[in-house]
This record gives sequence, structure tokens and C-alpha cells, in this order.
Amino acid sequence: MGSELFVKFYKSPFLALKWRSCHSSGGELAFPGMNERAILKQICAAGMDPVAVPIGPGDDMAMLDIGAQAHEGRILVAVDQLIGGIHVDVERVSMAEIGHKAVARCLSDVAAMAGRPVASLVAAVLPQGCSDSAAMELFDGMRETAMRHHAPIVGGDLSAHRIGHGPLTCSVTVVAVPTPNGAVERFGAEAGDVVAVTGSLGGSFGSDGAGRHMTFEPRIGEGIMLHAILGDGLHAMIDLSDGLGTDAAHLLEHSPRLQIRIDAKAIPVASGCTWRQAMVDGEDYELCFCASGEIPSQVLDCPITPVGHVVERSPGDSRSVVVVDEDGNEHDLTNAGWEHVS
Amino acid sequence: MGSELFVKFYKSPFLALKWRSCHSSGGELAFPGMNERAILKQICAAGMDPVAVPIGPGDDMAMLDIGAQAHEGRILVAVDQLIGGIHVDVERVSMAEIGHKAVARCLSDVAAMAGRPVASLVAAVLPQGCSDSAAMELFDGMRETAMRHHAPIVGGDLSAHRIGHGPLTCSVTVVAVPTPNGAVERFGAEAGDVVAVTGSLGGSFGSDGAGRHMTFEPRIGEGIMLHAILGDGLHAMIDLSDGLGTDAAHLLEHSPRLQIRIDAKAIPVASGCTWRQAMVDGEDYELCFCASGEIPSQVLDCPITPVGHVVERSPGDSRSVVVVDEDGNEHDLTNAGWEHVS
Repeated sequence: MGSELFVKFYKSPFLALKWRSCHSSGGELAFPGMNERAILKQICAAGMDPVAVPIGPGDDMAMLDIGAQAHEGRILVAVDQLIGGIHVDVERVSMAEIGHKAVARCLSDVAAMAGRPVASLVAAVLPQGCSDSAAMELFDGMRETAMRHHAPIVGGDLSAHRIGHGPLTCSVTVVAVPTPNGAVERFGAEAGDVVAVTGSLGGSFGSDGAGRHMTFEPRIGEGIMLHAILGDGLHAMIDLSDGLGTDAAHLLEHSPRLQIRIDAKAIPVASGCTWRQAMVDGEDYELCFCASGEIPSQVLDCPITPVGHVVERSPGDSRSVVVVDEDGNEHDLTNAGWEHVS
Repeated sequence: MGSELFVKFYKSPFLALKWRSCHSSGGELAFPGMNERAILKQICAAGMDPVAVPIGPGDDMAMLDIGAQAHEGRILVAVDQLIGGIHVDVERVSMAEIGHKAVARCLSDVAAMAGRPVASLVAAVLPQGCSDSAAMELFDGMRETAMRHHAPIVGGDLSAHRIGHGPLTCSVTVVAVPTPNGAVERFGAEAGDVVAVTGSLGGSFGSDGAGRHMTFEPRIGEGIMLHAILGDGLHAMIDLSDGLGTDAAHLLEHSPRLQIRIDAKAIPVASGCTWRQAMVDGEDYELCFCASGEIPSQVLDCPITPVGHVVERSPGDSRSVVVVDEDGNEHDLTNAGWEHVS
């Protein structure tokens, strides 16, 4: 096959520019003018364990050996998209940061289940005219973050936009396994639980389009450690993408009789932030959990901060998440971070 | 949360319209004016087996129980993208057909491994102004095809373009398991093998943009049956997306000393097609395999046709795939379906 570029003239109205490589995983590259072979080599670079990945990129599908790893034969899967202009400002951050974020936000879902990642797959549509070096920087960012969390990229599919201004789109699928403790679901909060968070909250978006939302590391180790320490007492967990107000409310979506009450002054606010910013800014990618038992003050290098409690909701009270400020005033933060438009 | 629409005003330059549902799988919807809840309900409609999918859409990740199914703890994974204007002419085919094709072409990779699908995940970016009914038709098409092949959609992520003409993009990830016979790889062809194909080839693209490339069913049952019948004699298999010429060459990418010789008059051409069309049209989504032993003439309802042999390549002969026509003339079809542009 070599590394040349071919043009296929379909009988259909479409003209497709495609390229196939023995290193691609059933994927197809549809962009002219780029050194796709080099990009694929970057994605599929060394570091893949042949025992864990008996069939790597290059065949119709990759094979994963999760036999020794998957507790009771159970695996976890999720997909997440990152779109230029929606989730990242492609003008203001580097391609490496975009690649990192695309993978990291999907891995944050693994952290929220207290799972352990084992592999990832990426599909991307690159902007028209994307340079070789920019594309490679993107995939380097993806690959490095994926490998750092032991989730090698085992498959991919790459295309490029035919139209100008078509946004960079990265779709990342992650495969994970629960630990022998099982997975931690979202919806198990119980009255009396402590509500706690990892790290600090608020101000994730820098004024320059960058900031912590582009550089965070998913709390995978912390999720597993919390589960190991708290065991069955770890009732519910979520990662904070929308903001503590909205995401804490997610924890109670199946619990209409419960309410989360948060003490404003207990919230571990990021430097320079108010408690309200910490509740509504979003994209913290910290963990929020509901648990009984003794909450550790730290796991790994990460501080754990109790911020409130789960209580029975009073009759007629429709609020899921209430913040009590230092003057004793109650604020409904159920949908904080979001403003109604309809 | 209800089904309302919220607007989040980030501190960043971005304005994000998002919606979350207790039925979404960590997914995020970023398009205004659509009844996303109804769409998600469609995707995640009944039919999911709670034993096979202990945690379905709605949590941070879905959980699959593949314990009783995954031979020696091995799973298969692949991702595939379908992009409007590249893989489908969105003006000429229905959204249901697009949804079908997006899932079916990924399931065709499962067929090529002789695997059995167990779940799928979809991520999509919808065109600006996509109507409720069009979006639902798309996901109905995805869901029905996924369910028909026992690969329920367990997770998803949906967004919409902010720009006009941004193309419909569907990314589908499929999770499968090998049978106890293992998976059939691409690269195991041996000198002396018969080369055979399922079904008929050529003319997949109708003059109206539709045609068999939009309506095919992946040959999953046929792949598994072939493997059951041929056992270890089934050395290599691929699905025909680029055309028999190019795809047969893929089978030999790791076998520089082998050549596939095809008898033109043996090719099962689709009605009205020449042997050359059958070699180069592409998107047949039939299976092509190399095997020793007795090749069945049919599996399930599908005819199996021997079309050639794998031979040792003569010194100095660089051709991977050669077609011998009825006059005995040899044609190099190694890269057929593709024309060089560089």
C-alpha cells in the first residue's frame, strides 16, 4: 500500500479522498495534504501491552484481554465528544491541550464510577486545512493522556471537513473495569450521608480561554482509593462537569424525597473565587460523593472536603440542592450554572 | 431536572446551550429548539437486558456484563465515523437510512472478526436546524439496527453544529465478543488458501445516492457460521468496504511474499455489473476470506463463492492482487478503486 494518497471516484455524487494504512484500525482518512501515516504512527506508538491488547490497531477491531482484570466479567463503557467552539476555544489553546481534554473528560467518567481505565478509542473530524504538525500535536495530546492513565488508544477513525469552518470534533470512547469492590453509581445517596468533594472548585475557565478546564487530570486514583477506604459506605459519586449545584442535583434525580444541603463556608473554593462561583462555574472535573462512615481528609495527594449532608426533603420543598450561607440564608442551587431560557 | 432547556453563561467566550437528562449517559446536548428528551428516550427505549447491561444509560458510564459471554475474558472494540457529504448524501437518503448505515458499517467490522456484538455507543453532531422528527428518525434508524444485531445503544453523546452547513457526524463504537473459536484476524492468509466472498459484489451505489451501501445488513451470522464450519482453517477475513481489489490487498499487508489471484469469471457480480465494477465499486460490506478445507457453498441464506487462490508471489512481482480475465490476461487490481493523485 505504501503511504501515498489515492482518490476514489465513486459512482455516487461524492468524491472521497481516502488513505488506508496497515497501522490503521479499520479507520479511514479523508483529508488531503496531510501526512496521515505519521499521525497514525503517533497514535499507535509503542507502549501497548501485547498481553492486555492481543490485537491492536490495524485489524477490523482491536481485541482487549480483560479476563484477569474485569471483576465478575463486567466492563464499563462511555463516549464523550469535544467540539471546537463549544467545549474548547481552538483559537486560544494548543492542540495538545485539546487532545488532552478530549481524553481526560471521558476518563473523568471512569473516575466517577471508581473504575480503572483499560483502553480508549478516538474518532476525529479535523478542520479543513489542519496542518500535519497541528494534527500530530492533537493526537500526541490524546495519546499521552490516554497512556498516562493506562488506557492506550486501540482504535481510531479520522476524517477532515470538506467545508471551511467545520469544527474540530473529537469523539472518545473509554473502556474500563470496576475494581473487585464494584462500580459506584450515581443514584445511591441516603439520608444522613455526608456530601464531600475532591480538590477545589470554581474558576476553571481562565480569562484567556485556557485554565484548569483544559489541564485537569481525571481523579481516577482518587475515585478508586475513596472506594477502597469507604467500601459500601460510598453510596453515590459523580464528576463535576456542570458545577456542584447542577451535578449534586443529578445525584438525587432518582431520589425525589432527598435534599442535599451545602454549607457555603465549607466549600473548598479555588483561589479568588466566591462560594457561588465554586457552585456554578463548572468544568472542575473534581469528584462529588455521598457516603456514610468516616470521610478521609485526603486521598493520594488530594484533599477531601465535606461540604454538606443529604437530608429528607420537607413536604412541599422542591429543591434538590440548597446552599446555606454564613448568615443562615438558604439559596436554591438546584439548577445553578444554568439559566432558564424557556 | 425536567425537560427544559438551560443556557449556561461561561466566563469563557463560549455560550453553551446544554441539556441533561436522567436518561442520558454522561452525555450532553448542545442544541436549542429540539426535543432532546424525546430523542434520548428513543435511543434508550425498551429492549435492554438488565442482566447483560446492569447499568444502562443515565450514569457516568454504562456497565456491561460480559462474564458469561467473553471467551477467555476477551472483548473486541472498534469505532467508525459516518459523515454527511463524505459517506452519505444527506440530501438524497432518509435519516433512518443514515442511522442504519452508521451502525451497520461498524457492525460489519464485527462480522469481519467473526465476533458477536454486545453493545454500541453513539456520538453525533447534528446539522444546525435539524428538526426533532429528523433527529428522531436518525436515532430510530441507529437503535433499530443496533437492537436487531443485539448491540443495544448503552451510551451516547449528542451535540449540534453552531455553524451552517456543519455536516452531520455520527461516531459509532461497538463492543463485541469473540466466540469460543476466537476471533478471525486479517493477516493470516497462507499459500494454497482459497479466497472466497459472501453475496454479490459491485453496483452498491445507486444513481440516486441510495443503493445497497445504504441498506446492507452486516454479515454477522455468516461470519460466525463460517468460523464454526471452517474452524482453524479460516485463516483471514475482512469486510469489503473499499472494493475487493483494495481489501484483498489489505489481507496481504503483512505477507509480502503472497499474492491473491482472482478468476474474473468466478466473481459473483451484482446484477448488471462487470467484473471490474465488482472489484472497484466498493461499499459492498460483504465478507472476503482466505481458508483451507472445504468451503461451504452457502451459510445461512447467503451464497459463498470461491473467487481465487493465495499463491507464493514470483520474485520481482510486486502485485498483491491479480485478476485473470477470461482471455487469460492479468490485471493488477492491488489498488483498484483508487486512483493515484500524487
